[in-house]
Amino acid sequence: MNIEELKRAPIGVFDSGVGGLTVAREIMRQLPDENIVYFGDTARLPYGSKSKESIIRFSRQIIRFLQTKNVKAIVIACNTATAMALETVQQEFDTPIIGVIVPGARAAVQETKNKKIGVIGTEGTIRSNMYTRVIREIEPEAEVLGKACPLFVPLVEEGFVKNYSAVTEEVIDIYLREMRESEVDTMILGCTHYPLLRSAIIKYMGDRVHIVNPAYEAAMDLKKILNERNMNHESGEYNKYEFYVSDAAEKFKQFANSVLPYDVKYIHQINIEEY
Amino acid sequence: MNIEELKRAPIGVFDSGVGGLTVAREIMRQLPDENIVYFGDTARLPYGSKSKESIIRFSRQIIRFLQTKNVKAIVIACNTATAMALETVQQEFDTPIIGVIVPGARAAVQETKNKKIGVIGTEGTIRSNMYTRVIREIEPEAEVLGKACPLFVPLVEEGFVKNYSAVTEEVIDIYLREMRESEVDTMILGCTHYPLLRSAIIKYMGDRVHIVNPAYEAAMDLKKILNERNMNHESGEYNKYEFYVSDAAEKFKQFANSVLPYDVKYIHQINIEEY
Repeated sequence: MNIEELKRAPIGVFDSGVGGLTVAREIMRQLPDENIVYFGDTARLPYGSKSKESIIRFSRQIIRFLQTKNVKAIVIACNTATAMALETVQQEFDTPIIGVIVPGARAAVQETKNKKIGVIGTEGTIRSNMYTRVIREIEPEAEVLGKACPLFVPLVEEGFVKNYSAVTEEVIDIYLREMRESEVDTMILGCTHYPLLRSAIIKYMGDRVHIVNPAYEAAMDLKKILNERNMNHESGEYNKYEFYVSDAAEKFKQFANSVLPYDVKYIHQINIEEY
Repeated sequence: MNIEELKRAPIGVFDSGVGGLTVAREIMRQLPDENIVYFGDTARLPYGSKSKESIIRFSRQIIRFLQTKNVKAIVIACNTATAMALETVQQEFDTPIIGVIVPGARAAVQETKNKKIGVIGTEGTIRSNMYTRVIREIEPEAEVLGKACPLFVPLVEEGFVKNYSAVTEEVIDIYLREMRESEVDTMILGCTHYPLLRSAIIKYMGDRVHIVNPAYEAAMDLKKILNERNMNHESGEYNKYEFYVSDAAEKFKQFANSVLPYDVKYIHQINIEEY
Protein backbone atom coordinates (compact mmCIF):
# COMPACT_ATOMS: atom_id res chain seq x y z
CA MET A 1 0.00 0.00 0.00
CA ASN A 2 1.24 3.52 -0.71
CA ILE A 3 0.91 6.18 1.98
CA GLU A 4 -2.48 7.44 0.76
CA GLU A 5 -3.90 3.94 0.65
CA LEU A 6 -2.47 3.29 4.09
CA LYS A 7 -4.12 6.38 5.54
CA ARG A 8 -7.48 5.34 4.13
CA ALA A 9 -7.10 1.72 5.28
CA PRO A 10 -9.40 0.67 8.11
CA ILE A 11 -8.59 -0.19 11.72
CA GLY A 12 -9.32 -3.83 12.55
CA VAL A 13 -11.00 -4.35 15.91
CA PHE A 14 -11.89 -7.77 17.28
CA ASP A 15 -13.47 -9.37 20.29
CA SER A 16 -15.14 -12.64 21.27
CA GLY A 17 -18.50 -10.97 20.68
CA VAL A 18 -20.19 -7.70 21.48
CA GLY A 19 -18.00 -6.51 24.37
CA GLY A 20 -15.39 -5.00 22.07
CA LEU A 21 -18.02 -2.61 20.76
CA THR A 22 -17.23 -0.45 23.80
CA VAL A 23 -13.68 -0.17 22.37
CA ALA A 24 -14.98 0.48 18.83
CA ARG A 25 -17.23 3.18 20.33
CA GLU A 26 -14.21 4.91 21.91
CA ILE A 27 -12.29 4.75 18.61
CA MET A 28 -15.29 6.27 16.81
CA ARG A 29 -15.36 9.09 19.38
CA GLN A 30 -11.66 9.82 19.53
CA LEU A 31 -10.79 9.07 15.88
CA PRO A 32 -13.96 10.02 14.04
CA ASP A 33 -12.26 10.01 10.62
CA GLU A 34 -11.02 6.42 10.76
CA ASN A 35 -12.72 3.49 9.04
CA ILE A 36 -13.27 0.39 11.15
CA VAL A 37 -13.68 -3.32 10.40
CA TYR A 38 -15.05 -5.05 13.49
CA PHE A 39 -15.09 -8.80 14.00
CA GLY A 40 -17.06 -10.49 16.81
CA ASP A 41 -16.36 -14.22 17.28
CA THR A 42 -19.92 -15.03 18.27
CA ALA A 43 -19.64 -18.70 17.23
CA ARG A 44 -16.96 -19.35 19.86
CA LEU A 45 -17.72 -16.85 22.61
CA PRO A 46 -17.17 -16.53 25.50
CA TYR A 47 -13.37 -16.53 25.56
CA GLY A 48 -13.18 -15.95 29.32
CA SER A 49 -13.38 -19.58 30.34
CA LYS A 50 -11.28 -21.08 27.51
CA SER A 51 -7.63 -22.15 27.34
CA LYS A 52 -4.64 -20.15 26.13
CA GLU A 53 -4.02 -22.50 23.17
CA SER A 54 -7.58 -22.06 21.92
CA ILE A 55 -7.51 -18.27 22.31
CA ILE A 56 -4.21 -18.04 20.36
CA ARG A 57 -5.64 -20.19 17.57
CA PHE A 58 -8.82 -18.09 17.43
CA SER A 59 -6.81 -14.82 17.39
CA ARG A 60 -4.57 -16.00 14.54
CA GLN A 61 -7.60 -16.88 12.42
CA ILE A 62 -9.25 -13.53 13.09
CA ILE A 63 -6.07 -11.57 12.28
CA ARG A 64 -5.76 -13.48 9.00
CA PHE A 65 -9.36 -12.56 8.23
CA LEU A 66 -8.80 -8.87 9.10
CA GLN A 67 -5.72 -8.83 6.86
CA THR A 68 -7.95 -9.74 3.91
CA LYS A 69 -9.64 -6.37 4.62
CA ASN A 70 -6.24 -4.61 4.37
CA VAL A 71 -6.34 -3.17 7.88
CA LYS A 72 -3.50 -0.79 8.80
CA ALA A 73 -3.59 -1.63 12.52
CA ILE A 74 -5.43 -4.07 14.78
CA VAL A 75 -6.89 -3.53 18.23
CA ILE A 76 -7.58 -6.66 20.28
CA ALA A 77 -10.66 -5.31 22.00
CA CYS A 78 -10.86 -8.19 24.42
CA ASN A 79 -8.96 -8.50 27.67
CA THR A 80 -8.85 -12.29 27.61
CA ALA A 81 -7.45 -12.41 24.07
CA THR A 82 -4.99 -9.63 24.94
CA ALA A 83 -3.85 -11.52 28.04
CA MET A 84 -3.45 -14.85 26.29
CA ALA A 85 -2.54 -14.09 22.68
CA LEU A 86 -1.16 -10.54 22.20
CA GLU A 87 2.52 -11.36 22.76
CA THR A 88 2.36 -14.37 20.43
CA VAL A 89 0.55 -12.65 17.56
CA GLN A 90 2.65 -9.49 17.80
CA GLN A 91 5.66 -11.67 17.01
CA GLU A 92 3.94 -13.50 14.18
CA PHE A 93 2.34 -10.65 12.21
CA ASP A 94 3.73 -7.44 10.66
CA THR A 95 0.58 -5.35 11.15
CA PRO A 96 0.80 -3.21 14.33
CA ILE A 97 -1.37 -4.89 16.99
CA ILE A 98 -2.36 -3.27 20.26
CA GLY A 99 -4.27 -4.73 23.17
CA VAL A 100 -6.27 -3.21 25.99
CA ILE A 101 -4.14 -4.30 28.94
CA VAL A 102 -1.02 -2.11 28.61
CA PRO A 103 -3.07 1.09 28.12
CA GLY A 104 -5.35 0.17 31.06
CA ALA A 105 -2.44 -0.76 33.35
CA ARG A 106 -0.54 2.45 32.51
CA ALA A 107 -3.56 4.63 33.25
CA ALA A 108 -4.13 2.86 36.57
CA VAL A 109 -0.51 3.43 37.65
CA GLN A 110 -0.86 7.11 36.77
CA GLU A 111 -4.09 7.42 38.77
CA THR A 112 -3.32 5.53 41.96
CA LYS A 113 -2.10 7.49 44.98
CA ASN A 114 -1.42 4.56 47.32
CA LYS A 115 -0.22 2.05 44.70
CA LYS A 116 -3.07 -0.34 45.49
CA ILE A 117 -4.85 -1.27 42.28
CA GLY A 118 -7.84 -3.53 41.75
CA VAL A 119 -8.54 -5.45 38.55
CA ILE A 120 -11.82 -7.15 37.67
CA GLY A 121 -12.28 -9.37 34.62
CA THR A 122 -13.12 -12.81 33.32
CA GLU A 123 -11.65 -15.94 34.83
CA GLY A 124 -9.11 -16.19 31.97
CA THR A 125 -7.91 -12.59 32.32
CA ILE A 126 -7.53 -12.78 36.10
CA ARG A 127 -5.91 -16.23 36.07
CA SER A 128 -3.38 -15.05 33.47
CA ASN A 129 -2.09 -12.42 35.93
CA MET A 130 -1.30 -10.27 32.91
CA TYR A 131 -2.53 -6.99 34.46
CA THR A 132 -0.45 -7.64 37.58
CA ARG A 133 2.61 -8.38 35.47
CA VAL A 134 2.26 -5.23 33.33
CA ILE A 135 1.43 -2.99 36.32
CA ARG A 136 4.51 -4.25 38.21
CA GLU A 137 6.74 -3.64 35.19
CA ILE A 138 5.70 0.02 35.29
CA GLU A 139 5.50 0.33 39.09
CA PRO A 140 7.30 -2.49 40.92
CA GLU A 141 5.88 -1.44 44.30
CA ALA A 142 2.24 -1.68 43.20
CA GLU A 143 -0.06 -4.13 44.95
CA VAL A 144 -2.67 -5.66 42.68
CA LEU A 145 -5.92 -7.27 43.85
CA GLY A 146 -7.61 -9.28 41.08
CA LYS A 147 -11.16 -10.62 41.09
CA ALA A 148 -12.90 -12.72 38.42
CA CYS A 149 -16.57 -11.76 37.95
CA PRO A 150 -17.88 -14.40 35.49
CA LEU A 151 -21.56 -13.49 35.87
CA PHE A 152 -21.10 -9.86 34.77
CA VAL A 153 -20.98 -10.72 31.05
CA PRO A 154 -24.28 -12.65 30.95
CA LEU A 155 -25.90 -9.96 33.12
CA VAL A 156 -24.94 -7.36 30.50
CA GLU A 157 -25.82 -9.54 27.51
CA GLU A 158 -29.21 -10.58 28.86
CA GLY A 159 -30.25 -7.03 29.64
CA PHE A 160 -30.34 -7.51 33.44
CA VAL A 161 -28.22 -4.40 33.96
CA LYS A 162 -30.92 -2.27 32.38
CA ASN A 163 -34.02 -4.16 33.47
CA TYR A 164 -33.26 -5.83 36.80
CA SER A 165 -31.01 -3.58 38.79
CA ALA A 166 -31.70 -5.41 42.08
CA VAL A 167 -30.14 -8.66 40.78
CA THR A 168 -27.29 -6.72 39.20
CA GLU A 169 -26.57 -4.89 42.47
CA GLU A 170 -26.63 -8.12 44.43
CA VAL A 171 -24.15 -9.82 42.09
CA ILE A 172 -21.92 -6.72 42.22
CA ASP A 173 -22.02 -6.93 46.02
CA ILE A 174 -21.05 -10.64 45.94
CA TYR A 175 -18.08 -10.05 43.63
CA LEU A 176 -16.85 -6.64 44.78
CA ARG A 177 -17.40 -6.52 48.54
CA GLU A 178 -13.83 -7.60 49.29
CA MET A 179 -12.53 -5.00 46.81
CA ARG A 180 -14.61 -2.26 48.41
CA GLU A 181 -13.39 -3.21 51.87
CA SER A 182 -9.76 -3.22 50.71
CA GLU A 183 -7.51 -0.17 50.40
CA VAL A 184 -7.63 -0.20 46.60
CA ASP A 185 -7.99 3.40 45.33
CA THR A 186 -8.04 2.60 41.58
CA MET A 187 -9.89 -0.20 39.83
CA ILE A 188 -9.51 -1.39 36.24
CA LEU A 189 -12.58 -2.58 34.31
CA GLY A 190 -10.62 -5.49 32.85
CA CYS A 191 -13.32 -6.82 30.51
CA THR A 192 -14.78 -4.90 27.61
CA HIS A 193 -18.34 -5.65 28.73
CA TYR A 194 -17.82 -3.95 32.06
CA PRO A 195 -18.06 -0.32 30.89
CA LEU A 196 -21.74 -1.17 30.33
CA LEU A 197 -21.94 -1.83 34.09
CA ARG A 198 -19.90 1.27 34.88
CA SER A 199 -22.50 3.38 36.64
CA ALA A 200 -23.67 0.49 38.84
CA ILE A 201 -20.05 -0.27 39.74
CA ILE A 202 -19.26 3.39 40.50
CA LYS A 203 -22.38 3.62 42.66
CA TYR A 204 -21.27 0.54 44.60
CA MET A 205 -17.56 1.39 44.95
CA GLY A 206 -18.13 5.05 45.85
CA ASP A 207 -16.12 8.18 45.07
CA ARG A 208 -13.00 7.00 46.86
CA VAL A 209 -12.13 4.57 44.06
CA HIS A 210 -11.07 5.81 40.62
CA ILE A 211 -12.39 3.61 37.79
CA VAL A 212 -10.12 3.01 34.77
CA ASN A 213 -11.72 2.07 31.44
CA PRO A 214 -9.08 0.38 29.22
CA ALA A 215 -11.34 0.85 26.16
CA TYR A 216 -10.85 4.61 26.46
CA GLU A 217 -7.11 4.28 27.08
CA ALA A 218 -6.63 1.88 24.14
CA ALA A 219 -8.30 4.35 21.76
CA MET A 220 -5.91 7.06 23.07
CA ASP A 221 -2.96 4.74 22.41
CA LEU A 222 -4.17 3.95 18.91
CA LYS A 223 -4.47 7.68 18.16
CA LYS A 224 -0.89 8.21 19.30
CA ILE A 225 0.49 5.33 17.23
CA LEU A 226 -1.32 6.44 14.05
CA ASN A 227 -0.04 10.02 14.52
CA GLU A 228 3.55 8.90 15.13
CA ARG A 229 3.55 6.74 12.01
CA ASN A 230 1.70 9.36 9.96
CA MET A 231 -0.98 6.75 9.26
CA ASN A 232 -4.00 8.66 10.50
CA HIS A 233 -6.87 9.28 8.16
CA GLU A 234 -7.68 12.90 7.40
CA SER A 235 -11.34 13.59 6.90
CA GLY A 236 -13.10 14.65 3.75
CA GLU A 237 -14.50 11.32 2.68
CA TYR A 238 -17.41 9.43 4.17
CA ASN A 239 -16.29 7.00 6.77
CA LYS A 240 -17.20 3.40 6.90
CA TYR A 241 -17.84 0.94 9.69
CA GLU A 242 -18.14 -2.73 8.78
CA PHE A 243 -19.22 -5.49 11.15
CA TYR A 244 -18.50 -9.20 10.78
CA VAL A 245 -19.45 -12.06 13.07
CA SER A 246 -18.95 -15.82 13.06
CA ASP A 247 -22.55 -16.57 14.10
CA ALA A 248 -25.97 -15.17 15.09
CA ALA A 249 -25.74 -11.87 13.22
CA GLU A 250 -29.26 -10.72 14.18
CA LYS A 251 -28.63 -10.88 17.92
CA PHE A 252 -25.32 -9.06 17.44
CA LYS A 253 -27.09 -6.31 15.50
CA GLN A 254 -29.62 -5.73 18.26
CA PHE A 255 -26.89 -5.45 20.84
CA ALA A 256 -24.73 -3.22 18.61
CA ASN A 257 -27.64 -0.86 18.19
CA SER A 258 -28.02 -0.58 21.95
CA VAL A 259 -24.30 0.23 22.43
CA LEU A 260 -23.28 2.32 19.41
CA PRO A 261 -24.41 5.90 18.84
CA TYR A 262 -25.52 5.28 15.27
CA ASP A 263 -27.72 2.80 13.45
CA VAL A 264 -26.01 -0.46 12.46
CA LYS A 265 -27.79 -1.81 9.38
CA TYR A 266 -25.71 -4.73 8.09
CA ILE A 267 -23.83 -7.45 9.89
CA HIS A 268 -21.93 -9.91 7.70
CA GLN A 269 -21.61 -13.50 8.84
CA ILE A 270 -18.47 -15.47 7.87
CA ASN A 271 -17.03 -18.91 8.63
CA ILE A 272 -13.96 -18.02 10.68
CA GLU A 273 -12.69 -21.62 10.65
CA GLU A 274 -11.75 -21.06 6.98
CA TYR A 275 -9.03 -18.53 7.88
CA MET B 1 -18.92 -55.55 15.10
CA ASN B 2 -20.33 -58.95 16.10
CA ILE B 3 -23.11 -59.14 18.70
CA GLU B 4 -20.73 -59.56 21.66
CA GLU B 5 -18.62 -56.59 20.59
CA LEU B 6 -21.77 -54.58 20.05
CA LYS B 7 -23.04 -55.35 23.56
CA ARG B 8 -19.75 -54.26 25.09
CA ALA B 9 -19.53 -51.11 22.93
CA PRO B 10 -20.02 -47.84 24.81
CA ILE B 11 -22.88 -45.35 24.67
CA GLY B 12 -21.80 -41.98 23.25
CA VAL B 13 -23.20 -38.99 25.12
CA PHE B 14 -22.53 -35.42 24.11
CA ASP B 15 -23.34 -31.89 25.14
CA SER B 16 -21.98 -28.38 24.71
CA GLY B 17 -20.28 -28.72 28.08
CA VAL B 18 -21.10 -30.00 31.52
CA GLY B 19 -24.91 -29.89 31.39
CA GLY B 20 -25.16 -33.28 29.70
CA LEU B 21 -23.56 -34.84 32.76
CA THR B 22 -27.05 -34.85 34.28
CA VAL B 23 -28.03 -37.17 31.41
CA ALA B 24 -24.89 -39.29 31.81
CA ARG B 25 -25.72 -39.53 35.52
CA GLU B 26 -29.20 -40.88 34.72
CA ILE B 27 -27.73 -43.43 32.29
CA MET B 28 -25.26 -44.54 34.97
CA ARG B 29 -28.16 -44.99 37.42
CA GLN B 30 -30.59 -46.74 35.10
CA LEU B 31 -28.07 -48.70 33.01
CA PRO B 32 -25.25 -49.37 35.46
CA ASP B 33 -23.63 -52.01 33.23
CA GLU B 34 -23.14 -49.78 30.20
CA ASN B 35 -19.88 -48.13 29.25
CA ILE B 36 -20.06 -44.43 28.39
CA VAL B 37 -17.94 -42.10 26.26
CA TYR B 38 -18.89 -38.51 27.10
CA PHE B 39 -17.91 -35.51 25.00
CA GLY B 40 -18.34 -31.91 26.22
CA ASP B 41 -17.76 -29.21 23.59
CA THR B 42 -16.23 -26.76 26.05
CA ALA B 43 -14.30 -24.86 23.33
CA ARG B 44 -17.52 -23.78 21.64
CA LEU B 45 -20.05 -23.65 24.45
CA PRO B 46 -22.65 -22.32 25.01
CA TYR B 47 -24.84 -23.64 22.20
CA GLY B 48 -27.97 -21.86 23.42
CA SER B 49 -27.33 -18.56 21.67
CA LYS B 50 -25.86 -19.95 18.43
CA SER B 51 -27.37 -20.59 15.00
CA LYS B 52 -28.84 -23.80 13.63
CA GLU B 53 -26.13 -24.12 10.93
CA SER B 54 -23.35 -23.93 13.53
CA ILE B 55 -25.03 -26.43 15.86
CA ILE B 56 -25.49 -28.93 13.00
CA ARG B 57 -21.82 -28.56 12.02
CA PHE B 58 -20.70 -29.04 15.63
CA SER B 59 -22.95 -32.09 16.07
CA ARG B 60 -21.63 -33.76 12.92
CA GLN B 61 -18.04 -33.32 14.08
CA ILE B 62 -18.82 -34.74 17.52
CA ILE B 63 -20.67 -37.75 16.10
CA ARG B 64 -17.70 -38.47 13.80
CA PHE B 65 -15.45 -38.30 16.87
CA LEU B 66 -17.72 -40.62 18.88
CA GLN B 67 -17.76 -43.09 15.99
CA THR B 68 -13.97 -43.41 16.32
CA LYS B 69 -14.77 -44.80 19.81
CA ASN B 70 -17.10 -47.42 18.24
CA VAL B 71 -20.17 -46.31 20.14
CA LYS B 72 -23.28 -48.48 19.69
CA ALA B 73 -25.73 -45.61 20.26
CA ILE B 74 -25.55 -41.86 20.79
CA VAL B 75 -27.52 -39.66 23.16
CA ILE B 76 -27.58 -35.95 22.34
CA ALA B 77 -27.63 -34.78 25.95
CA CYS B 78 -28.32 -31.18 25.02
CA ASN B 79 -31.71 -29.71 24.31
CA THR B 80 -30.39 -27.06 21.92
CA ALA B 81 -28.47 -29.59 19.84
CA THR B 82 -31.46 -31.94 19.88
CA ALA B 83 -33.77 -29.13 18.73
CA MET B 84 -31.50 -27.94 15.97
CA ALA B 85 -29.56 -30.97 14.76
CA LEU B 86 -31.22 -34.29 15.72
CA GLU B 87 -33.39 -34.68 12.61
CA THR B 88 -30.49 -33.87 10.29
CA VAL B 89 -27.93 -36.17 11.90
CA GLN B 90 -30.41 -39.03 12.30
CA GLN B 91 -30.72 -39.02 8.50
CA GLU B 92 -26.97 -38.79 7.92
CA PHE B 93 -25.61 -41.44 10.30
CA ASP B 94 -26.35 -45.16 10.77
CA THR B 95 -25.71 -45.25 14.51
CA PRO B 96 -28.98 -44.95 16.51
CA ILE B 97 -29.17 -41.39 17.85
CA ILE B 98 -31.66 -40.24 20.46
CA GLY B 99 -32.26 -36.77 21.82
CA VAL B 100 -33.81 -35.43 25.00
CA ILE B 101 -36.82 -33.64 23.55
CA VAL B 102 -39.09 -36.51 22.43
CA PRO B 103 -38.71 -38.37 25.77
CA GLY B 104 -39.34 -35.14 27.71
CA ALA B 105 -42.34 -34.13 25.60
CA ARG B 106 -43.89 -37.61 25.87
CA ALA B 107 -43.55 -37.66 29.65
CA ALA B 108 -45.12 -34.18 29.93
CA VAL B 109 -48.13 -35.24 27.84
CA GLN B 110 -48.58 -38.29 30.07
CA GLU B 111 -48.39 -36.17 33.24
CA THR B 112 -50.57 -33.18 32.40
CA LYS B 113 -54.21 -33.19 33.48
CA ASN B 114 -55.32 -29.93 31.85
CA LYS B 115 -53.11 -30.13 28.72
CA LYS B 116 -51.29 -26.92 29.64
CA ILE B 117 -47.54 -27.56 29.55
CA GLY B 118 -44.67 -25.18 30.29
CA VAL B 119 -41.18 -25.48 28.79
CA ILE B 120 -38.10 -23.63 30.00
CA GLY B 121 -34.77 -23.72 28.17
CA THR B 122 -32.11 -21.72 26.37
CA GLU B 123 -32.97 -19.09 23.79
CA GLY B 124 -32.14 -21.52 20.96
CA THR B 125 -34.33 -24.32 22.32
CA ILE B 126 -37.32 -22.06 22.96
CA ARG B 127 -37.00 -20.17 19.66
CA SER B 128 -36.86 -23.49 17.77
CA ASN B 129 -40.36 -24.34 19.05
CA MET B 130 -39.29 -27.97 18.92
CA TYR B 131 -40.92 -28.97 22.23
CA THR B 132 -44.19 -27.36 21.13
CA ARG B 133 -44.07 -29.18 17.81
CA VAL B 134 -43.36 -32.59 19.38
CA ILE B 135 -45.94 -32.12 22.16
CA ARG B 136 -48.62 -31.16 19.61
CA GLU B 137 -47.82 -34.21 17.47
CA ILE B 138 -48.60 -36.40 20.49
CA GLU B 139 -51.46 -34.28 21.87
CA PRO B 140 -52.86 -31.81 19.32
CA GLU B 141 -54.96 -30.02 21.94
CA ALA B 142 -52.04 -29.22 24.23
CA GLU B 143 -51.19 -25.60 24.96
CA VAL B 144 -47.50 -24.94 25.39
CA LEU B 145 -46.00 -21.93 27.18
CA GLY B 146 -42.27 -21.55 26.49
CA LYS B 147 -39.82 -19.33 28.35
CA ALA B 148 -36.10 -18.81 27.68
CA CYS B 149 -34.04 -18.49 30.87
CA PRO B 150 -30.54 -17.62 29.60
CA LEU B 151 -29.08 -16.73 33.00
CA PHE B 152 -29.80 -20.15 34.54
CA VAL B 153 -26.76 -21.82 32.91
CA PRO B 154 -24.16 -19.32 34.19
CA LEU B 155 -25.83 -19.37 37.63
CA VAL B 156 -25.33 -23.14 37.73
CA GLU B 157 -21.81 -23.08 36.28
CA GLU B 158 -20.57 -20.32 38.57
CA GLY B 159 -21.86 -22.03 41.69
CA PHE B 160 -24.48 -19.37 42.52
CA VAL B 161 -27.14 -22.02 42.94
CA LYS B 162 -25.23 -23.55 45.83
CA ASN B 163 -23.64 -20.44 47.28
CA TYR B 164 -25.96 -17.51 46.63
CA SER B 165 -29.50 -18.72 46.85
CA ALA B 166 -30.94 -15.19 47.14
CA VAL B 167 -29.68 -14.20 43.68
CA THR B 168 -30.78 -17.55 42.27
CA GLU B 169 -34.27 -17.14 43.74
CA GLU B 170 -34.59 -13.63 42.37
CA VAL B 171 -33.60 -14.72 38.85
CA ILE B 172 -36.05 -17.65 39.09
CA ASP B 173 -38.77 -15.17 40.07
CA ILE B 174 -37.93 -12.91 37.08
CA TYR B 175 -38.06 -15.77 34.58
CA LEU B 176 -40.82 -17.95 36.02
CA ARG B 177 -43.39 -15.57 37.52
CA GLU B 178 -45.55 -15.62 34.39
CA MET B 179 -45.33 -19.43 34.30
CA ARG B 180 -46.36 -19.70 37.97
CA GLU B 181 -49.30 -17.37 37.42
CA SER B 182 -50.44 -19.35 34.36
CA GLU B 183 -52.54 -22.53 34.42
CA VAL B 184 -49.62 -24.75 33.47
CA ASP B 185 -49.73 -27.96 35.54
CA THR B 186 -46.61 -29.62 34.07
CA MET B 187 -43.27 -28.01 33.32
CA ILE B 188 -40.36 -29.45 31.33
CA LEU B 189 -36.78 -28.66 32.39
CA GLY B 190 -35.74 -28.15 28.76
CA CYS B 191 -32.01 -27.65 29.36
CA THR B 192 -29.68 -30.25 30.82
CA HIS B 193 -28.30 -27.77 33.35
CA TYR B 194 -31.68 -27.18 34.90
CA PRO B 195 -31.95 -30.40 36.94
CA LEU B 196 -29.18 -28.82 39.03
CA LEU B 197 -31.65 -26.01 39.82
CA ARG B 198 -34.47 -28.47 40.36
CA SER B 199 -35.11 -28.02 44.07
CA ALA B 200 -35.09 -24.21 43.81
CA ILE B 201 -37.51 -24.41 40.88
CA ILE B 202 -39.81 -26.85 42.70
CA LYS B 203 -39.79 -24.60 45.77
CA TYR B 204 -40.78 -21.63 43.61
CA MET B 205 -43.40 -23.35 41.43
CA GLY B 206 -45.07 -25.24 44.28
CA ASP B 207 -46.72 -28.66 44.46
CA ARG B 208 -49.37 -27.85 41.89
CA VAL B 209 -46.88 -28.11 39.03
CA HIS B 210 -45.33 -31.42 38.02
CA ILE B 211 -41.69 -31.07 36.94
CA VAL B 212 -40.47 -33.27 34.03
CA ASN B 213 -36.73 -34.01 33.76
CA PRO B 214 -35.94 -35.08 30.15
CA ALA B 215 -32.56 -36.47 31.29
CA TYR B 216 -34.39 -39.14 33.27
CA GLU B 217 -36.81 -39.85 30.43
CA ALA B 218 -34.01 -40.07 27.82
CA ALA B 219 -32.19 -42.68 29.90
CA MET B 220 -35.44 -44.67 30.09
CA ASP B 221 -35.79 -44.47 26.29
CA LEU B 222 -32.20 -45.57 25.79
CA LYS B 223 -32.79 -48.59 28.03
CA LYS B 224 -35.83 -49.55 25.97
CA ILE B 225 -34.00 -49.22 22.64
CA LEU B 226 -31.03 -51.28 23.83
CA ASN B 227 -33.35 -54.00 25.12
CA GLU B 228 -35.41 -54.10 21.94
CA ARG B 229 -32.31 -54.42 19.78
CA ASN B 230 -30.66 -56.86 22.15
CA MET B 231 -27.71 -54.50 22.42
CA ASN B 232 -27.66 -54.03 26.18
CA HIS B 233 -24.52 -54.88 28.08
CA GLU B 234 -24.76 -57.63 30.64
CA SER B 235 -22.63 -57.15 33.69
CA GLY B 236 -19.69 -59.14 34.84
CA GLU B 237 -16.90 -56.94 33.57
CA TYR B 238 -15.70 -53.65 35.01
CA ASN B 239 -17.42 -50.75 33.43
CA LYS B 240 -15.74 -47.76 31.96
CA TYR B 241 -16.61 -44.09 31.74
CA GLU B 242 -14.46 -41.91 29.51
CA PHE B 243 -14.66 -38.13 29.31
CA TYR B 244 -13.47 -35.95 26.44
CA VAL B 245 -13.65 -32.17 26.06
CA SER B 246 -12.57 -29.66 23.41
CA ASP B 247 -11.10 -27.22 25.96
CA ALA B 248 -10.44 -26.43 29.63
CA ALA B 249 -10.32 -30.00 30.95
CA GLU B 250 -9.50 -28.99 34.52
CA LYS B 251 -12.61 -26.86 34.99
CA PHE B 252 -14.72 -29.63 33.46
CA LYS B 253 -13.26 -32.12 35.91
CA GLN B 254 -14.13 -29.99 38.93
CA PHE B 255 -17.68 -29.62 37.72
CA ALA B 256 -17.99 -33.31 36.84
CA ASN B 257 -16.90 -34.22 40.34
CA SER B 258 -19.61 -32.04 41.82
CA VAL B 259 -22.33 -33.65 39.64
CA LEU B 260 -21.36 -37.31 39.31
CA PRO B 261 -21.59 -39.83 42.14
CA TYR B 262 -18.06 -41.12 41.62
CA ASP B 263 -14.60 -39.64 41.31
CA VAL B 264 -13.65 -38.53 37.79
CA LYS B 265 -9.87 -38.78 37.47
CA TYR B 266 -9.02 -38.22 33.82
CA ILE B 267 -10.46 -35.82 31.27
CA HIS B 268 -9.00 -36.06 27.74
CA GLN B 269 -8.75 -32.92 25.66
CA ILE B 270 -9.06 -33.19 21.86
CA ASN B 271 -9.22 -30.79 18.92
CA ILE B 272 -12.78 -31.29 17.69
CA GLU B 273 -12.19 -29.18 14.56
CA GLU B 274 -10.16 -32.12 13.21
CA TYR B 275 -13.24 -34.35 12.92
